[in-house]
Amino acid sequence: MRIDVIPFLTAVHPEDLAGKTVLVIDVLRATTTILAALGSGSSCVVPVETVEEALELHTQGDVLGGERGCERIAGFDLGNSPLEYTPAAVEGRRVILTTTNGTRALQKASQASHVAAASLLNGAACAQAVLDWQRDAVILCAGTRGAFCLEDGLCAGQIVSHLLSSGSGSSLSICDFSRAMAACYTRHAGQLAEALTDSDNGRRLSGLGFRADLEYSARADTSRLVPVLTGNVLVPLSEHQPMPF
Amino acid sequence: MRIDVIPFLTAVHPEDLAGKTVLVIDVLRATTTILAALGSGSSCVVPVETVEEALELHTQGDVLGGERGCERIAGFDLGNSPLEYTPAAVEGRRVILTTTNGTRALQKASQASHVAAASLLNGAACAQAVLDWQRDAVILCAGTRGAFCLEDGLCAGQIVSHLLSSGSGSSLSICDFSRAMAACYTRHAGQLAEALTDSDNGRRLSGLGFRADLEYSARADTSRLVPVLTGNVLVPLSEHQPMPF
Repeated sequence: MRIDVIPFLTAVHPEDLAGKTVLVIDVLRATTTILAALGSGSSCVVPVETVEEALELHTQGDVLGGERGCERIAGFDLGNSPLEYTPAAVEGRRVILTTTNGTRALQKASQASHVAAASLLNGAACAQAVLDWQRDAVILCAGTRGAFCLEDGLCAGQIVSHLLSSGSGSSLSICDFSRAMAACYTRHAGQLAEALTDSDNGRRLSGLGFRADLEYSARADTSRLVPVLTGNVLVPLSEHQPMPF
Repeated sequence: MRIDVIPFLTAVHPEDLAGKTVLVIDVLRATTTILAALGSGSSCVVPVETVEEALELHTQGDVLGGERGCERIAGFDLGNSPLEYTPAAVEGRRVILTTTNGTRALQKASQASHVAAASLLNGAACAQAVLDWQRDAVILCAGTRGAFCLEDGLCAGQIVSHLLSSGSGSSLSICDFSRAMAACYTRHAGQLAEALTDSDNGRRLSGLGFRADLEYSARADTSRLVPVLTGNVLVPLSEHQPMPF
């Protein structure tokens, strides 16, 4: 099985994802928020690219969520902070979510065999899903405005580290960027919240009053939930395998 | 002062380098070989893109060096192994060098204010040059065939680490990719030869009988020499500042 990590969204050609497992990462904050919503009992998350699409899809009972410039969109129920996606706000309801990078990355992976949303919270569970699906995998860091961002690289490194330390580790073929991200993760594993706080997006979010989101987003391997794309909708992977790590 | 690390050659726009300090990295093996040649007393190294250019420039007394597919070019004096560039082979002579990635990267930086060739051997000396030149710096990993390679990322991380631990560290503004590469370097610093052996290019070179090149290329901070581009020619930086680290 081959594992590739792509440093940012514009570095990938959609045809390179065809037939593979694709893990989309946007730690700050789209994929962390998707996980929070499903973890709080939302029935599904619909990722869309534009505000117009979100408004068009919206029907009675849905939750409209998303951000532009890190802030809640005018008229929307929720922003893009995972802390807002409580059971009280989303349980049993469909969430329509539009964010700057994360939803775009999910749409880019439409030719893949399996698409899952990964964050630091569910890195180990995503690694297990990659092994279960038995296909070559591309770990796609969304990045920010066409450039690499540290938190997505850390999450990619977390997943690669889990894959390498699994029973199948010795049979995996990994790219140099996977090796680099695994080393970067290992270096920061004991202090992920600090690393996120020091990152470009972390500084921006702290400045906007979202520091608590960084602490939340850094809680590695605390969720077994794997949001998978089914049609255009993210739902929790139904079979809950035992945590391998 | 702003420090950016570019993960591979095709990710940079030449206009983004205008007026800046650019460090070009191709650890396996162009920039390591350039350092070896100048360290052995070669009068200068002329990096060219094609075999035809190399043959055209060649005059009596010059050394023709370079590779295609990691192997010496037919009719050339030397290949691209730094170990070949001994004083007996190159002292007092001009070296005309054509390699797959490294020379292309040097040419891409032609609009820069200062261009230097960096490798693990002279990482600390290159960091000092960046500080001395007092301009925003771009650390340009050549990569391989349009993709990131580990050894160039490690060298970028080495230089960023030296910059951050210098007296000017707190006044530097660095990008997330710089942070990631510094963490990756710190993780591997005690075992660089092993990391190079484990990399994609390291495996390829080992398979072709160039394992000794990996050991040589991994000897971090053993040279104070900084090859700088003057016109189209690389010469040693004339002022030998004391090593700051």
